[in-house]
This record gives sequence, C-alpha cells and structure tokens, in this order.
Amino acid sequence: MSEVRTARRRATIQDIADAAGLSRGTVSRVLNDEQYVSAAAREAVQDAIRRVGYVRSAAARSLVTRRSGAIALIVHEPSVVVLDDPNIGNILIGTNSVLSEAEQQLVTIMVDSARDSHRVVEYLRGGFVDGAIVLSARDDDPITKAIVEIGLPACFVGHPPDAAAISWIGIDNRDAAERITRRLVDTGRKRIAMLASGLDRDSGQDRLAGFASALGDRYDPDLVARNPLFSYTAGAEGMRELLDRAPDIDGVFAASDAVAAGAMDLLQRRGKRVPEDIGIVGFDDSAWALRCDPELSTVRQPARTLGEQAARQVLEQIAEPSTEPRGLVLPTEVVWRGSA
Amino acid sequence: MSEVRTARRRATIQDIADAAGLSRGTVSRVLNDEQYVSAAAREAVQDAIRRVGYVRSAAARSLVTRRSGAIALIVHEPSVVVLDDPNIGNILIGTNSVLSEAEQQLVTIMVDSARDSHRVVEYLRGGFVDGAIVLSARDDDPITKAIVEIGLPACFVGHPPDAAAISWIGIDNRDAAERITRRLVDTGRKRIAMLASGLDRDSGQDRLAGFASALGDRYDPDLVARNPLFSYTAGAEGMRELLDRAPDIDGVFAASDAVAAGAMDLLQRRGKRVPEDIGIVGFDDSAWALRCDPELSTVRQPARTLGEQAARQVLEQIAEPSTEPRGLVLPTEVVWRGSA
Repeated sequence: MSEVRTARRRATIQDIADAAGLSRGTVSRVLNDEQYVSAAAREAVQDAIRRVGYVRSAAARSLVTRRSGAIALIVHEPSVVVLDDPNIGNILIGTNSVLSEAEQQLVTIMVDSARDSHRVVEYLRGGFVDGAIVLSARDDDPITKAIVEIGLPACFVGHPPDAAAISWIGIDNRDAAERITRRLVDTGRKRIAMLASGLDRDSGQDRLAGFASALGDRYDPDLVARNPLFSYTAGAEGMRELLDRAPDIDGVFAASDAVAAGAMDLLQRRGKRVPEDIGIVGFDDSAWALRCDPELSTVRQPARTLGEQAARQVLEQIAEPSTEPRGLVLPTEVVWRGSA
Repeated sequence: MSEVRTARRRATIQDIADAAGLSRGTVSRVLNDEQYVSAAAREAVQDAIRRVGYVRSAAARSLVTRRSGAIALIVHEPSVVVLDDPNIGNILIGTNSVLSEAEQQLVTIMVDSARDSHRVVEYLRGGFVDGAIVLSARDDDPITKAIVEIGLPACFVGHPPDAAAISWIGIDNRDAAERITRRLVDTGRKRIAMLASGLDRDSGQDRLAGFASALGDRYDPDLVARNPLFSYTAGAEGMRELLDRAPDIDGVFAASDAVAAGAMDLLQRRGKRVPEDIGIVGFDDSAWALRCDPELSTVRQPARTLGEQAARQVLEQIAEPSTEPRGLVLPTEVVWRGSA
C-alpha cells in the first residue's frame, strides 16, 4: 500500500490478479458480483484488493447495477449569487438531509457559463449520477434537454416552461407577490415601486406579474427597477435608481430579501426612514430578513421543504421508473414585521 | 428515444446489440474502445447507441481511462455554517474557475455527520472522482485516511496535523492573529477579549495561539469565549457572555468576520459604541466586513486564491502522479478600517 501511495499509480485488475494468484477473469467475476466464483477465490480477491489498494472504479459497481449511488443538485446561478442567496442554501440543506437518510450521495454542481452547461451534459451522460435536482433553470437549457433525452430521474425546483416532461416543485410566485403588494396598498402606501430581479426565469417574471396585478390601474412601469441578480448589490443600485427617478415613492416590493437588505442600507445612507418614509417588503423570509433593522416584512417560502420534496420525487422515480412527471405547488405565507 | 423517456428504463448493452444486429461482445469492444472492431461495426454501434438512448455508464469511460473527469470539493462543516461563511464560497469560486478551465467537473460534497463521512469514503473508493480538495478537515478523519490509502490526488485547504502525506495550502493563522491583536494593543486597548471558534481544528487553534502570544503576560483565559462555530450567532452569544463576565473590556478579536458581525449587533443592542467604547476586529475580510457599521478592521485572507491553488495542485498530481506532497503558505494582510 505504501508503494501505491508514493507512486500514486492506481492499482489495476492485473495487480489484484497477481497478488491473489488468480486469473483476471476470476477477479473480474468477483468485482462484478457474478455467480460461479468459489468462496475461497472471492476471499482471496478481496484480500488482494485491500493489499494493492485497488479503487473499485465506478465501472465495477455501475456495470452491474447501472447505479452510481449519487444524485446531482445542479444550480444555474453565477457563483457570486449562490453565496448571497440563503434560499439556495436552504434548498441544499433540505435535499441533503433526505438523500443522506436514503444513503445517496449528494453532489452539488454550479453552472455559470455555456461551457459549464456543456460539461455538465457530458457528466450526466457519463452515468455518474442516478438523478438530478435542478435549480433556477432557464428556458432552452441544454441540461434540461439532456435530462429528458436520457430519461434521467429528475425534479426541477421552479418550472421552466419548456420542461413539461420533467417533474417540478415550486411555489406560486405570482400569487404571493400579489398578496404582499396588496398589503402595502392596504397599509396606505400610495407610490409603490418594485425592485425586480431574475426576469429571465419564471420566479422573477411571476413576481413582477403579481406586483402589477395587485396595483391594477395604479401600476406604473416607470416605478420598476430591473436587475438580473437577486442580490444585495442589485437592491442598493436599484433603490438609488428609483429614488433618482421618483423621490416621492413611499413603498417598495423587493424581489428577494437580499435585494431588500441592499435597498434598506441605501435608504439609510440617504437619510430615509423605514418604515416612516418608505415601507419595504421582501421575498423568501431568509436569514437576511431578521438581520434587517427594522426586521423585514416578507413572503415566507418553504425553501428547505422544497429541497426535501424535490429529493423525494427523484428517489421515487429511481425506485419506480414508470412514475409520471408531476408538478407540486407548496404554500407561502406573508410575514408582517417592522419594515412596512 | 421517446419510449425510453416515457418508461425511464435505461437502455442496456443488449438493447444496443439488438438494434445494431451485432453481438454483445462487439458492442462491448466498441464501448471500451478496443482494437479489432471494423469501422462498419463501430458505426453501427454508435448509430444504435443514439437510437436506443444509451447512457454511456461511468463504466464505459473509466474502465478504459480510469478517469472520471470530475474532482470533488469536500466541505466538512455543518450545512448551516456553509451558508454563513463567504470564505468557503470564495474558495469554491476559485476552485471552480480553475477546474472549469481545465474541463474538469467540480462536484461539491458536504460532510455533516459520521454517516456522511462513511458514505463519502465509499464514493471516493468508487472511482467517481479523480481527485479531491478538502476543506476544514479535522484530525482523525476517515475521509483523510481513505484518500491516503487509495492514493487519490488531493489537496487540503488548511493543515490537519495527521495528513502529512497529502499536499495542503493555507495561511499562517497564528502569525495573522498575533499581528491584528498587537495592533489592538498598539491603539490603546487595555482589556482585550477573544471570541474563539473552531478550536477542534488547526485554523481555530492557531488563531487563539496567536492572540495569546500577542498579549503575553496580559493574556487572561477568562476573557476568551469559546464556540464550535465561526458564525454570526456564535458572535452574538459569545459577546453577551463576555460582557456579563467582564463589562470593562474595550477590545475584542473575533475569530471570523461573521463572528464579529454578530458581536457588533449585540454591542449595539446593549448601547455600546464601536469603536469608541469597544474596538473590534475580525478575520477573513469577507463580505461581512463591509456590511458591518462601522466597517470592520480584519485580516484579509486570500480565499479565492486558496481555492485556485488547491485546484492547480490536484490537477498537477493527476497529470504527474509522482508529484511529492507539499505545503504552501499564502500571505495575509491586516486591513484597518473603522471598527477599531
């Protein structure tokens, strides 16, 4: 073993055969768990494996079972956003807890470029995972196509319109956005703006649609600041833009809590009081909400449960390959605190 | 293909053989890229693979090359801490950028329990990855042992004392802690406390040692609050504990910026002014430092570079298996801002 360690040369089946004094064929039959191998030979091979430090390649297991024991969590976000987004973290925690109980290995993969997508497609085609949970997929995504094509057990968190053949789980973003915006109206705010993010995907689009719907005739597209990212920085920049454009706004719906936190810090620097001068609400009820001062009114989305349920759906598809794709919508709740 | 999609049954080698009108043996030779296969047979098999939607299992590639094309980033932290720690995020970003350029797939794995460790050992033994980057490993870790035993190309970020046979990369935590504590002394602080975290691993131990060394005779173990986690909550709880124990402290070294942020919020709630009543310094220079008010004096650690260099070390070992294990220490810098 110490030779292996020093040279870092991976032991081969031939090495095992030599160490065990058996043929390669016999070693191979043991590795593949085939019949017609004597108990003595099996033991000799297992002993030789330990001695030469053989790494049972993915081959040995998956040629027989066609299972890898691993499931991918694929996160389509620029890396910087992953760090800023406790929502993704909570989905990850939920997913990991369910897969861990099922003795499946979760492997998280970030996709940040077209090049990344191409490589992930190769990885999925390579049979390294038995299933995938996919976050923040956009329309027309090569990874979505590959999952459909190879029939990989999968569940999307969120619902890209072109992924009809794949199970998904999500919340009703439009309805939740409408409810929290209406509450801003009901508490007397007159000039209500929105910090909109992620308009390239369903969650961002639906939150803007719900905002517009709640305001009806009073909806003014000029009071919407747009940013691709659901981030703290996006919130600070968007808030600056809105104040320059309409200094009299008195209510703001931010597309996420991180966005709201950035906006609140900018307001403070501009000498605006929350909630006295401007009421502000967020979305997620993530750790950001409680770190805001005053604490943030927001929409609670069940991020951990989303992760848990997505993992369960994938496990179910693996266990029962004929499972039909289905969508599942989890409820949200408006949480009213000090910021509005 | 559409049948495969509906039934979600994975195509087998037999399916390819049937579709191609060839023997399983021939199909197998093509998949394994062996010699003595006619061009016509090779083409027929490739055509059949497309028609039946065969997923080239990890086997097909790795039996031949013994390479998976994937590298693991193994993070030993409770999941909640991963979310709170921008440092880990920056290491991840650095690792991902280098591996992405090298066309290697990064897969991130969280280890949160002994059960997780056991499963990850199996995963590594399964040959699913060609190398590993390991964060926050403790002493006596089964994953460390498995990496040494199978000779897996690897690099640790940080330096667990029992991993002498594995390359590592890190910073001099003791020296950095000593420098920033000394600066607290030099700016006139008399009663200096520490919020110590992670005393079960080298980074936490070394930061405490550097703190004690800077204070020399004035070091008072009663002015050290201990918490396993480098977290915001740990900082708030530890600060409360310290104030109860010694209301006259006027300087605090927090073991990370997240810890410092929690401490500052607690101080604010207790009506203590920073830096007038208490000077506070952190460690990391992460996103937390700039979100503190006033901004945090801290130690800048090159987290992204740590990730990049760790990835390069692993790639080098894969390319050149005889590479000797080595340690690499990157420099840090004290950044003095408004909090002390």
